[in-house]
Amino acid sequence: MGVMDTPSTHAGHGPGATPHVVIVGGGFAGLWATRGLAGAPVRITLVDRGNHHLFQPLLYQVATAGLSAPDIAAPLRHILRGQRNVEVRMAGVEDIDTQARALRLDDGTTLGYDTLLLATGATHAYFGHDDWAAHAPGLKTLDDALRLRRRLLCAFERAEAEADPQRRAAWLSFAIVGGGPTGVELAGTLAEIARHTLRSEFRNIDPASARVRLVEAGPRVLAAFPPDLSAKAQAQLERLGVEVLTGTAVSSIDAEGFRLGERFVPARTVVWAAGVAASPLARALDVPLDRAGRVRVAPDLSVPGHPEIFVAGDLAAVEQGGRPVPGVAPAAKQMGRHVAQAIRARLQGREAPPFRYRDLGNLATIGRQAAVVDFGRLRFSGVIAWWFWLWAHVFFLIGFRNRLVVLLNWTWAYWTYQRGARIILGEDDDDRPPPAPGPAPS
Amino acid sequence: MGVMDTPSTHAGHGPGATPHVVIVGGGFAGLWATRGLAGAPVRITLVDRGNHHLFQPLLYQVATAGLSAPDIAAPLRHILRGQRNVEVRMAGVEDIDTQARALRLDDGTTLGYDTLLLATGATHAYFGHDDWAAHAPGLKTLDDALRLRRRLLCAFERAEAEADPQRRAAWLSFAIVGGGPTGVELAGTLAEIARHTLRSEFRNIDPASARVRLVEAGPRVLAAFPPDLSAKAQAQLERLGVEVLTGTAVSSIDAEGFRLGERFVPARTVVWAAGVAASPLARALDVPLDRAGRVRVAPDLSVPGHPEIFVAGDLAAVEQGGRPVPGVAPAAKQMGRHVAQAIRARLQGREAPPFRYRDLGNLATIGRQAAVVDFGRLRFSGVIAWWFWLWAHVFFLIGFRNRLVVLLNWTWAYWTYQRGARIILGEDDDDRPPPAPGPAPS
Repeated sequence: MGVMDTPSTHAGHGPGATPHVVIVGGGFAGLWATRGLAGAPVRITLVDRGNHHLFQPLLYQVATAGLSAPDIAAPLRHILRGQRNVEVRMAGVEDIDTQARALRLDDGTTLGYDTLLLATGATHAYFGHDDWAAHAPGLKTLDDALRLRRRLLCAFERAEAEADPQRRAAWLSFAIVGGGPTGVELAGTLAEIARHTLRSEFRNIDPASARVRLVEAGPRVLAAFPPDLSAKAQAQLERLGVEVLTGTAVSSIDAEGFRLGERFVPARTVVWAAGVAASPLARALDVPLDRAGRVRVAPDLSVPGHPEIFVAGDLAAVEQGGRPVPGVAPAAKQMGRHVAQAIRARLQGREAPPFRYRDLGNLATIGRQAAVVDFGRLRFSGVIAWWFWLWAHVFFLIGFRNRLVVLLNWTWAYWTYQRGARIILGEDDDDRPPPAPGPAPS
Repeated sequence: MGVMDTPSTHAGHGPGATPHVVIVGGGFAGLWATRGLAGAPVRITLVDRGNHHLFQPLLYQVATAGLSAPDIAAPLRHILRGQRNVEVRMAGVEDIDTQARALRLDDGTTLGYDTLLLATGATHAYFGHDDWAAHAPGLKTLDDALRLRRRLLCAFERAEAEADPQRRAAWLSFAIVGGGPTGVELAGTLAEIARHTLRSEFRNIDPASARVRLVEAGPRVLAAFPPDLSAKAQAQLERLGVEVLTGTAVSSIDAEGFRLGERFVPARTVVWAAGVAASPLARALDVPLDRAGRVRVAPDLSVPGHPEIFVAGDLAAVEQGGRPVPGVAPAAKQMGRHVAQAIRARLQGREAPPFRYRDLGNLATIGRQAAVVDFGRLRFSGVIAWWFWLWAHVFFLIGFRNRLVVLLNWTWAYWTYQRGARIILGEDDDDRPPPAPGPAPS
């Protein structure tokens, strides 16, 4: 095949030419790899479907109207404007030709590479129940978050306008499927919204009567934490007003509610926080994948049989000491940094070292003044854990302005219980009941 | 016909019952009328399609990525939570039955009223060229602003990826149709983005080479201002890099560009800021409308022949001293306040007084340190006008938090030339060229 050269392609496989590194995905892994190659004698093209790096750990705050979308994102071009060996390309990747060493982009052009890093992350998975997607949306992108925000806020609006008590109760019934960090954050925050934020704003309903259920198929929430912290997280959730249902799997979901075994639970708003699967682009590599679709990489994070291709972040299946490296932001950053080092080593004729994951501890927030922190021997929960979580997240946000705005929003939210982004955006096309056959005027 | 009573309907036309005032539209006119009836012996239902009051004077800042959508909006429920005689209803109004005194809502229910205030404002109008709408979107809602932001930011992305110099130039060609305040603000800000904000972020294009044209059919921009301020505004725009084309009307618009008389100007991004028409709901009243579709109201802002119906804000055609009252925020607030007084007067058996518009002056911003202010005898422009405009707008923003966030964003933008909301949201379905027929990797 021929590589179609656009001015931004720089295919150049020729000897002596500056090697062309293509990095797909501007998340933690891709961005940290790009930064790790600053000043290196390579030309980098960073390809991302969107125009921004997203601080995913705070995505649930956008979904629950605590933050605006731009508060937790920054344009990739802007972050990298000073790194002269990088070109940012906003496009989706449709296919990879590992023989020709070229990507096919969704704008119809082809992009050649000498070295490729795939860091496209994960998406939600419905374990073979793709029909649940329409009724139980997941949370991976800013657009997902805005859609979820609209659903959550509209549910209270629908309840307020609904005359029938049973249908009204169904609009005030929320379920989060999946008791991992995202599910726990969403459930805790949603309970706070119902109990505090919306207080005295409605005339026909009491928002505090809303039921928030967190459904987890496994025996406990936050399974990545030690059992005592899981128990504390559950206790904190229950204090916030969340009903935690563990050891029980969802067997069906439709527009009216969901089924737990044989029992039907009415709920007009169900959120999917249960399954993640690796981005489908991994399949284009034609190498062995694990059950979640992740690429089983070599110790240096390259793809077996393709030393010129690396995989990092949530897309990589890496084991260390017999345990999988978790799909968290610090692991993705470490992998991204490692790939940059590996590429530098090879440029100097050295072999790439193996990747070593350094476990920095694990933290999860639950809601107002509620969080759990696990540093191995040091574990704590409650108020102190929450303040720790908050400052850690503000610290790691990219951009001075974003930090200030987020701090300001949180301070305000903390004192007033209010949430600054309670604005419904976009078309409300997916959650409105068909019009009742009432008599029309004239 | 029968009025279907839902718990939130309160049709009650019966004698002795508390009068039911229905206010349609939560903009300046509707919200100020609602607040003006605080404590009055009426039941108020405020109906709005969205869940928020929008500070429309800053909408162009959301479109040009300076502010986030929630920065300039606040939930109506939250604003009115303490006013116990108000119920907020999120719904669209599909029809008005003036005989039965009832509205048909888009959720299929019917809402009866004793007194009605229509304050649904204006929308953009294409003067019979509705096919232009797809190629030249307008700016009236937050969703419009986010769509426009996506188009503006994506145009630079497309230019960066485009190999053909002619097509690239078309992506870097922007036109704003209409030299009123919105058109002037958009053109000035867009020129600043191209010349300063995006500096050194692209590798294949120079954003500063983008052409920003402001097309006005009339002889001068900002026609509502005295000619000397119009001339100053044009000079300030030109200093910012905008090409101002006055006295020339657009004769066609398509995906590739627009026509000025016989001359075709390539431009992939055209924004419509030229025409407004009153919201189509006015037609349901079956009373005389003016050319722009506005209701010709009686001196007390009631509808001739329907003393129980008022119209306020951009939907009302009001003359004073032979000149039309302008469609600006202060006029809408004054009308809303007047309607509240008129309703109170009638409740006390008095006649409603006539509406008197108090002209508080006129200000328009153009861009960084550029604005014009007209207080009749006192007129000024440039840096001082800009600071005056900025503080006036921050002052009138609703909500303490919004003011702080907006001030913070503007301070940051002022010193860094950066814009905090440069995040592309939503599907990019409307402005992407069809894929080029390049060779695909196998």
